Amino acid sequence: MALSLICPTKDPVPWVAAIKAISPDIDLRIWPDDGDKADVSFTLVWAQPQGIFAQYPNLKVIASMGAGVDNLLQDSSIPDQATVVRMVDPRLVSQMGDYVLAAVLNHVRQFPDYVQQQQAHQWQPMQPRNIDEVTVGVMGVGQIGSAVAARLRRLGFKVVGWSRRAKVLAEIHVFAGQDQLSSFLAASEILICLLPLTAETENILNTGTLGQLPQGAYVVNVARGKHLVEEDLLSLINNNHLAGACLDVCRQEPLPQDHPFWSQPKITITPHIASLTDPVSVAPQIVDNYRRMITGQLLLNWVDRQQGY
Amino acid sequence: MALSLICPTKDPVPWVAAIKAISPDIDLRIWPDDGDKADVSFTLVWAQPQGIFAQYPNLKVIASMGAGVDNLLQDSSIPDQATVVRMVDPRLVSQMGDYVLAAVLNHVRQFPDYVQQQQAHQWQPMQPRNIDEVTVGVMGVGQIGSAVAARLRRLGFKVVGWSRRAKVLAEIHVFAGQDQLSSFLAASEILICLLPLTAETENILNTGTLGQLPQGAYVVNVARGKHLVEEDLLSLINNNHLAGACLDVCRQEPLPQDHPFWSQPKITITPHIASLTDPVSVAPQIVDNYRRMITGQLLLNWVDRQQGY
Repeated sequence: MALSLICPTKDPVPWVAAIKAISPDIDLRIWPDDGDKADVSFTLVWAQPQGIFAQYPNLKVIASMGAGVDNLLQDSSIPDQATVVRMVDPRLVSQMGDYVLAAVLNHVRQFPDYVQQQQAHQWQPMQPRNIDEVTVGVMGVGQIGSAVAARLRRLGFKVVGWSRRAKVLAEIHVFAGQDQLSSFLAASEILICLLPLTAETENILNTGTLGQLPQGAYVVNVARGKHLVEEDLLSLINNNHLAGACLDVCRQEPLPQDHPFWSQPKITITPHIASLTDPVSVAPQIVDNYRRMITGQLLLNWVDRQQGY
Repeated sequence: MALSLICPTKDPVPWVAAIKAISPDIDLRIWPDDGDKADVSFTLVWAQPQGIFAQYPNLKVIASMGAGVDNLLQDSSIPDQATVVRMVDPRLVSQMGDYVLAAVLNHVRQFPDYVQQQQAHQWQPMQPRNIDEVTVGVMGVGQIGSAVAARLRRLGFKVVGWSRRAKVLAEIHVFAGQDQLSSFLAASEILICLLPLTAETENILNTGTLGQLPQGAYVVNVARGKHLVEEDLLSLINNNHLAGACLDVCRQEPLPQDHPFWSQPKITITPHIASLTDPVSVAPQIVDNYRRMITGQLLLNWVDRQQGY
């Protein structure tokens, strides 16, 4: 019985060190030199070569190194009997919250405008809004989205949420399903996308939806690049329906050199850093799931492969 | 008995409207057309012409339109028997807090660096720090400083304070006096200046003090331009002792066109907008103080003219 790390684009060394520190007895291997693949029952993966799982006849668990599993689930070689799990890292949640707070406060306190002023050596005070007068709409109130929404609420913003199914959150009105999407959008002066990427949510941020945000609204995408139809965002910024956007993810990453986002001053681009998994922080749940697999217990943070999250 | 508004650089109209809305009976006048100056017992002032108070023989109260009274107190025509009061606006406190949170999160999440990257069409992820590992030092823990410190603490930062005299704040260690200034500075990875401007605090941010901050520290000045020796800050940024600064105030405002701050990408400049007094929000305390003056009660938010705040 062995655990193999399959992560061609990530350095496996910190992951191996973090797991060994807790559980030195696990038979850890690193793909492609992971020996007899019939020994491997648990894989820890990131950006794995498509189809790779067909080589592992005794695979029971596929653990994503990150919180999102949309890319992973597109691999048709995942065996039916294998369980897919993802990382649930309190650090990821708090890092995501920190990033979203920064993006939202930046917009409310007009920092991107003042960056522009500074470049032109201009000193032009503008009256700021008070945050208790601003409504933030959080699209996707799962594990991360609901924590981010709660932090925004605690800080003083008015917060609404949107979710596929009805949900109850303290002090946050959650709109549910397609029927209530328009009401949610009409209320959201700042829209935060924290949805999982599924067939239903791909391209969900488009002219039809973003056009229903109030005049002057702002968009923060910290989910996946494919949620957003990029040309639609640009048009709505260019015709002044939207004030701007802060994007941590793009359809193609790294963002291509000639992409128009780079030079639109109303768009802030960051290179997919809103939350980065820390191996030390998540090693305990990897080891725990490895033991649960051995003893046949229910795995932590397992993914519903039909729903995609 | 009359109240005169003396504010040559500010529009008095929203102030008059806000006061009239609460108390239509007050005899409100606007300098310089404020009639018989012997009628005036209460002045509401901002950037008043130096020496003006000598013209008001029956002046009892001088109310600053803002929270800071350093400029006002330099006027030697303030009569001995007059009481100086300042605005204490909960909006000012929360606005200041919002601004400081934005400045601090911007730095921790490296937004100024990513702005630079964006201008160069670069996509280079950097590992972010978690905010519970960052110590913020708040210099000046008076009414505004202690509220800002508490918000930073609630958000998850480690927070220390520095104050002239010993103070006790929940979950925040407050260093006191000159003796403990070095210990405070050595602990502060991000320094927030929220001191009042007095003879003792002018130029307090200089090579001697800023040099005691840890390597890579960041400075946020939201108090007064004269707290900071500007050349010293630039030198410490240029020799990489400091990572950068966010400055809402400067020695000369507006910042002169040819000032080196404008083009230093590690410095963020905003045009004195961290907190702007809202007339509607403070009108009740103006009216309350006017009535207290008439009935001889202790005034709200009175200033100790010896201490300067």
